Amino acid sequence: MSAMLRQRPATTDTMLAVFADEATLRHALAFEVGLARTEAAEGLIGAAEAEAIAKLCAAIVIDPAELADEAALAGTLAIPLVARLRAALPEAPAKVLHKGATSQDVADTVLACQIRAAFRLLDADLARLATALATLAGRYATTPAIGRTLLQDALPIGFGLRIAQWQAGIAEAAARLSREVETSATLQFGGAAGTRSGLDGKAAAIASRLAAMLALPDAAPWQSRRGGIAGIATALAILIGSLGKMARDVSLLAQNGIGEAREPAIPGRGGSSAMAHKRNPTGCQITLSAALRAPGLVAGILAGLPAEQERGLGGWQAEGPALADLFLLAAGATEAMATVAEGLEVDEAAIARNLAAAGVGTDIGESAALVADLLVIND
Amino acid sequence: MSAMLRQRPATTDTMLAVFADEATLRHALAFEVGLARTEAAEGLIGAAEAEAIAKLCAAIVIDPAELADEAALAGTLAIPLVARLRAALPEAPAKVLHKGATSQDVADTVLACQIRAAFRLLDADLARLATALATLAGRYATTPAIGRTLLQDALPIGFGLRIAQWQAGIAEAAARLSREVETSATLQFGGAAGTRSGLDGKAAAIASRLAAMLALPDAAPWQSRRGGIAGIATALAILIGSLGKMARDVSLLAQNGIGEAREPAIPGRGGSSAMAHKRNPTGCQITLSAALRAPGLVAGILAGLPAEQERGLGGWQAEGPALADLFLLAAGATEAMATVAEGLEVDEAAIARNLAAAGVGTDIGESAALVADLLVIND
Amino acid sequence: MSAMLRQRPATTDTMLAVFADEATLRHALAFEVGLARTEAAEGLIGAAEAEAIAKLCAAIVIDPAELADEAALAGTLAIPLVARLRAALPEAPAKVLHKGATSQDVADTVLACQIRAAFRLLDADLARLATALATLAGRYATTPAIGRTLLQDALPIGFGLRIAQWQAGIAEAAARLSREVETSATLQFGGAAGTRSGLDGKAAAIASRLAAMLALPDAAPWQSRRGGIAGIATALAILIGSLGKMARDVSLLAQNGIGEAREPAIPGRGGSSAMAHKRNPTGCQITLSAALRAPGLVAGILAGLPAEQERGLGGWQAEGPALADLFLLAAGATEAMATVAEGLEVDEAAIARNLAAAGVGTDIGESAALVADLLVIND
Amino acid sequence: MSAMLRQRPATTDTMLAVFADEATLRHALAFEVGLARTEAAEGLIGAAEAEAIAKLCAAIVIDPAELADEAALAGTLAIPLVARLRAALPEAPAKVLHKGATSQDVADTVLACQIRAAFRLLDADLARLATALATLAGRYATTPAIGRTLLQDALPIGFGLRIAQWQAGIAEAAARLSREVETSATLQFGGAAGTRSGLDGKAAAIASRLAAMLALPDAAPWQSRRGGIAGIATALAILIGSLGKMARDVSLLAQNGIGEAREPAIPGRGGSSAMAHKRNPTGCQITLSAALRAPGLVAGILAGLPAEQERGLGGWQAEGPALADLFLLAAGATEAMATVAEGLEVDEAAIARNLAAAGVGTDIGESAALVADLLVIND
Repeated sequence: MSAMLRQRPATTDTMLAVFADEATLRHALAFEVGLARTEAAEGLIGAAEAEAIAKLCAAIVIDPAELADEAALAGTLAIPLVARLRAALPEAPAKVLHKGATSQDVADTVLACQIRAAFRLLDADLARLATALATLAGRYATTPAIGRTLLQDALPIGFGLRIAQWQAGIAEAAARLSREVETSATLQFGGAAGTRSGLDGKAAAIASRLAAMLALPDAAPWQSRRGGIAGIATALAILIGSLGKMARDVSLLAQNGIGEAREPAIPGRGGSSAMAHKRNPTGCQITLSAALRAPGLVAGILAGLPAEQERGLGGWQAEGPALADLFLLAAGATEAMATVAEGLEVDEAAIARNLAAAGVGTDIGESAALVADLLVIND
Repeated sequence: MSAMLRQRPATTDTMLAVFADEATLRHALAFEVGLARTEAAEGLIGAAEAEAIAKLCAAIVIDPAELADEAALAGTLAIPLVARLRAALPEAPAKVLHKGATSQDVADTVLACQIRAAFRLLDADLARLATALATLAGRYATTPAIGRTLLQDALPIGFGLRIAQWQAGIAEAAARLSREVETSATLQFGGAAGTRSGLDGKAAAIASRLAAMLALPDAAPWQSRRGGIAGIATALAILIGSLGKMARDVSLLAQNGIGEAREPAIPGRGGSSAMAHKRNPTGCQITLSAALRAPGLVAGILAGLPAEQERGLGGWQAEGPALADLFLLAAGATEAMATVAEGLEVDEAAIARNLAAAGVGTDIGESAALVADLLVIND
Repeated sequence: MSAMLRQRPATTDTMLAVFADEATLRHALAFEVGLARTEAAEGLIGAAEAEAIAKLCAAIVIDPAELADEAALAGTLAIPLVARLRAALPEAPAKVLHKGATSQDVADTVLACQIRAAFRLLDADLARLATALATLAGRYATTPAIGRTLLQDALPIGFGLRIAQWQAGIAEAAARLSREVETSATLQFGGAAGTRSGLDGKAAAIASRLAAMLALPDAAPWQSRRGGIAGIATALAILIGSLGKMARDVSLLAQNGIGEAREPAIPGRGGSSAMAHKRNPTGCQITLSAALRAPGLVAGILAGLPAEQERGLGGWQAEGPALADLFLLAAGATEAMATVAEGLEVDEAAIARNLAAAGVGTDIGESAALVADLLVIND
Repeated sequence: MSAMLRQRPATTDTMLAVFADEATLRHALAFEVGLARTEAAEGLIGAAEAEAIAKLCAAIVIDPAELADEAALAGTLAIPLVARLRAALPEAPAKVLHKGATSQDVADTVLACQIRAAFRLLDADLARLATALATLAGRYATTPAIGRTLLQDALPIGFGLRIAQWQAGIAEAAARLSREVETSATLQFGGAAGTRSGLDGKAAAIASRLAAMLALPDAAPWQSRRGGIAGIATALAILIGSLGKMARDVSLLAQNGIGEAREPAIPGRGGSSAMAHKRNPTGCQITLSAALRAPGLVAGILAGLPAEQERGLGGWQAEGPALADLFLLAAGATEAMATVAEGLEVDEAAIARNLAAAGVGTDIGESAALVADLLVIND
């Protein structure tokens, strides 16, 4: 039962894949395999049992829809997944499977893996966008244009200064996101009550090894300390808002009667079902829509911070879908703005005409120097 | 590319179906068929063309994922859908297909149809819940229990009074939602600029007939007037919050050391992957999680109200996914609480023990009369 | 310690007065007086005691800042207020003061009184706005203008149709707000645990009489059932968003290069500290700023709905400030838009010029009929 | 017209002072004085004029309420403030006052000054809280207690482990806030269109000198690039949520029937107007209330990020009040939790009793080691 008609227009195929069932399941199985092998390496379980688990996890075929029904009933994915694995294993490996772990260890670690995969994807489009904007900002740094404040003509600016401000805002937001992901998308491994008990005093070694196997930083258990996830979510929303700033300005520049810039013409994009002559700013639409949705998604995650005791009731369960949505929106907006920036059609004649109509001269002040300053933020 | 592992635990299969691609597509095709037949009935297009359109729409097979890719590029579902239909039709019906309509007419009318279907579904579970809560409230109306304020023991109440308050809150919220859906889930038919032009002065008749065919109330075009959608969204969030009130209380009652009530035992539900002895309040978890997510989804819809001119850029495109999520969450929470209410295990001995420990007597004041007053709200 | 420089620019002096300390204190004292007189009338306390209470409440002078410090410590206004009154009364009236009531009874009833006062104030400006918009919509109903969708020229509309859509959206939102206020701004009277105990079986009579004295509808206690307050809050946000829709469009129309309408010139309004020639859309600024702030305020109130047991910890305490802010923002936005509508400067030559430039003819379809339909919503 | 009864219970007197009219005015005057002296130092205006401006700003008495009325009309504080100063100055200094600056330069720089003052204040209470929590976590690191997940008894933990998790979450949040404040609370100086024009090529030198005079970092103009403000706002909300986590747990521990810890008894705090025997968790109430309000305030700031062109219409005007509210709430919550932590009454007998009742042994796993790891985060 897909909902692509609702989800796809806001994002990219590749980001949908990062959060799709197949990826979720793959990460969850990798957790169980990694845990078993790690525990075997530390002598906590037998090597044969670990390999039996690894073999099964490599071979097992699970229908995500069926598993989702079971997870809905159980309240968590790990319960039915572990039950299915146990049922398919001989007694010895079945007994040691998932040893010392709990459902949220799986869920949070899977989320951390998806966050890192999602960020890598985003980063590639952010790089495209940064390059294109830096080029545009440089090219038009000293092109006199009317600056506008409170939606009214104000005084002249270098046309590239506005673009450099877009770029600086996006670059700062990308740097914040990178920092938050690096700090907080880490292994979660705490066991039933967050104490790492039942592991013969080898918990720290197991956590360290398991983190390395999953290519995540090791960390103290954070199952009821959710500020890190909130930090990633808010960084995403600020990034989306920074992209929205650019989209707002491009859509205003593209208005008839202004006409200083517009989105590139792309076959199949931006048409109208009723008016063949129109070219709609579809990239801006995707991005502004994301910028409207993101703040509320963040509010939901922030509201869940006061989690109860060693594992909250409702709060962390609300995070996964919201965080996935934030990455999906960020991907859609970044890709849209990268495409717009790479092909932006700037009309210098219109820029000159609008500036002349304002009748405020052509003194663009320190625009060129400020463009240079702002582009440094990207480095 | 499904995401059931993320979506299914928060909702029901039946509500997922209401907003699934198949349903969206079916409603969109029904719009085009209804429009063609209506225009034929008003003599605006030929009857043969209308029937060719209807025949094609009944037969055509469309891969939602492919259409979603095209919609993502075009910025709206209707453009590629109409293009596919046109390509499959002879010239005469192709020419009159979608006459006088625009993309948002399709999108908003589809949304209105889905809202009504979703509300009917919800209403059935709300009825189950109302019945179960009324029974519980009546049964325990005069059972003395400790009332609690600010999470501290206060003075005695009738145990059923708290339940009657849950029920009154849910009933009031359900009534608000019903009113908002009835008022605002209506036909959208405005054409390219919301003027209903190009219809030979028969626009009103066409709208009226089309509305009837789609089982929707007729209405003036509302493509840039989104308060009605916001009203439905906020009513959903208040309903979810009212269910969250019940879930909060049930989860507090179920605590060890309190133990006055707990969720029914259901095979496969509420277990723990690490502790076999636990019975987790999984229904409360679903509902409290929904109550954390709903406010932000509403904020996103409210933020889009200042839509630009005759069709906004970004705002209304943000509504569909958020509204679908709100219905999905409401369905999950309602179903969960109906199941909890129908099987709630009340421990009268624990109630009596906790009351005695508080040492504040047993005067429950007007609890019985208030239960009676509150249950009337449900009628 | 005032914060007028931060608060005043977003609202009106009169609405600030509705929620100012003096008003809050006056309503709280009226509650205590009303309760005493009501209980005397029902024979629960002596008439002399009631009059002693009334006399003191009429005469007492309380420094709000001092009382606020005490309330901050106590966690509620009523505790220090009742303590001060008791200390100033002879023993007999001191003993019966506040009988059967609790802090939240005072707080919620005060809030209900302020909501009603605030709504009356708002309603007067909404009427001004409705009149002005209806006039404008009628005047320009058939003036051909370019309609714009997705911020691009689309097809012609009657210029008054856009205005009629503003008016319909605002009228619908005002009607929703009126209904929510009428339903939910009611007496709260439940006593310590919401059971109305300790009143010799006369609770219902006392509540009914007290409600009448305070000019509020009577109602069952709602101290932990907050959907009504949430309904008022969401209705306010939808109203603010509807005003924001008008403000968005006016600010877009006023852009240089478009110039179809602009805010009236008002001495002291809309200037620039750096550019003497500018006329800024300050009314739109106030309104769009309100429309950005309102959704989050609503989210906070919705998030508090799952209140704990007979009186929540944190949730209802969060409502008062947010609801006051919503009324303050609604007042600022309504007054701003009423002033804009009453003096809107429409440039018919610019309208004609922009339409001609679009090159899409002058067929405004059913604009006139739709204006008529939409204005009916206001009746 | 004060509103202390509404504002004071959520915050501290000292934080109210940081954002009070007197402080706002003082910072705004400091900006004008600093600008004049800086421009004199760079030879752009005469030294005598600069000193006349400085002398007036030191002496002038302004009624904030009157100025607020004027600011409400003008749409910004700086316009009437500069007008008043000009009117009180001889012609020569009047002419050069505010040279090269614009209203938002004043507003944003004032905000940056207030943010830094607010953070310093907060930091002092955060240090109190960190010390108290570290002591508690250490003291009870190995005290066996029942761990609770999903509001149900789970397995044993060291009682201090939960406290160490509180502390780690708060410390991480405080570090994020410190970083965001350090990065983004900077001088704003861009002039009318953000180009720093009209300053004879000395803009960079003036900005650098002015920043130093106001004890702010220098920065490129950020008048329409608001990600830095959003970063501070979100960091505040995460901090408040982390405090809310502690408050949630303390309030749950203090429940009758659990009784493992409770807030200290403080004269005048936590009483009930109806029940003399109660001790309400008032510190938790303040904090949980803040945690409900903060997410929506953040959503409002995030929603304003897509600001229009060189100065947005509505977005940045919405930030100041929301950011002030966030600092006010953070101050109230931090002070409340510091007081709770310093006096937390822990009942070891109840802890032991509840653990025994759970019947899950006393193995607290690696609790002690994890406490040590988590407390390091604070360093």
